[in-house]
Amino acid sequence: MTEPTHSVRFITLEGPDGSGKSLQARLLGERLRAAGHDVVVTREPGGTRTGEQVREIVLGAGRGLDPMADALLFSAQRAQHVAEVIRPALEAGRVVVCDRHRDSTICYQGYGSGLDVEAMRALQDLATRGLLPDLTILLDVSVDVGLERRRAGRPDELNKFELDGAFDRGYHERVRAGYLSEAAAGGRWRIVDASRDPGAVAADVAAIALEALATGR
Amino acid sequence: MTEPTHSVRFITLEGPDGSGKSLQARLLGERLRAAGHDVVVTREPGGTRTGEQVREIVLGAGRGLDPMADALLFSAQRAQHVAEVIRPALEAGRVVVCDRHRDSTICYQGYGSGLDVEAMRALQDLATRGLLPDLTILLDVSVDVGLERRRAGRPDELNKFELDGAFDRGYHERVRAGYLSEAAAGGRWRIVDASRDPGAVAADVAAIALEALATGR
Repeated sequence: MTEPTHSVRFITLEGPDGSGKSLQARLLGERLRAAGHDVVVTREPGGTRTGEQVREIVLGAGRGLDPMADALLFSAQRAQHVAEVIRPALEAGRVVVCDRHRDSTICYQGYGSGLDVEAMRALQDLATRGLLPDLTILLDVSVDVGLERRRAGRPDELNKFELDGAFDRGYHERVRAGYLSEAAAGGRWRIVDASRDPGAVAADVAAIALEALATGR
Repeated sequence: MTEPTHSVRFITLEGPDGSGKSLQARLLGERLRAAGHDVVVTREPGGTRTGEQVREIVLGAGRGLDPMADALLFSAQRAQHVAEVIRPALEAGRVVVCDRHRDSTICYQGYGSGLDVEAMRALQDLATRGLLPDLTILLDVSVDVGLERRRAGRPDELNKFELDGAFDRGYHERVRAGYLSEAAAGGRWRIVDASRDPGAVAADVAAIALEALATGR
């Protein structure tokens, strides 16, 4: 058996609200650990003390934050997360599974809020100092299914993107379209139909990740 | 008398810690009001609810924040400050006096912490959506005098840039040299010797601002 030519270790889960990323990140972590991998499961915004403080500011409902301030706050917690958690874990040879990362800012504040998508991409390159995920799994779900799930699930945990009238149906449609447009580039992207039951989604996500870890692609 | 060809309304005060910016911003506001101007005096980080929250995160001592996270947090509160306070005030025809703005991030995280200065400049253009101060007054003071003043003044208010060993004498020397290098470009910059007593500094600052407001240059 030949060694993978490129080592896959940094895996991100992306998708609209209600696509099941948090659950799937946890399940993927368990599945990879069962297969013998040393795994860190983390999330954004958050993952560090500063990141959780920023999460409180940026996801609170009704704060009326400017979209550019949103983009920069999400990017700031990402810079800290990369420096403090992600890069050290990768350098120690661990696998990192991250619930949301750079593509969330590109799709929410770029495609969703209408900030310049290329500027958002450059901002992510700055925040992460050029670190890119090796594999990004888009958990795709329609806006109706996604929002319905979130509202039915834990209404006390809804964030401003789900509660605030400024983030209407059109906003969430633009976010989803943005994700599909980004994923159409191929490369590190894979798309999983997340409208199905969580067990079926988890099986697909695990198969994709295990294949990538085994082959380096 | 001919009308100014370019209206000067957005005035920033910049300089190292201990240069007396906060006091001078307040005194300048009073002086301009006495001359009949409608003035908003504000500060960064801060100036908005979100900005004050970010100020707490970013100036707290000993948090071990990555310099890039610092730069992005400062830029995030700036984006909100511009959107919520500065741009509306300018559009209403008011004069804005701001204690620290874009050049602080360029000089502290760029020159001081060693992040790419041009990247920091581009980040500011993004955060402010291209808004530039019309007049920037650098309150220049030596590192010794600046730090001594801060430590003698209100030791309970020292921030991480003054307390943390990571921000040593060399750091503060790089920040000051950065300011002098930026100001050497001329244009919107004026330099005032802030090692003198506050009354003398205030007189110079007021004369520069009143001249600029009168002539538009």
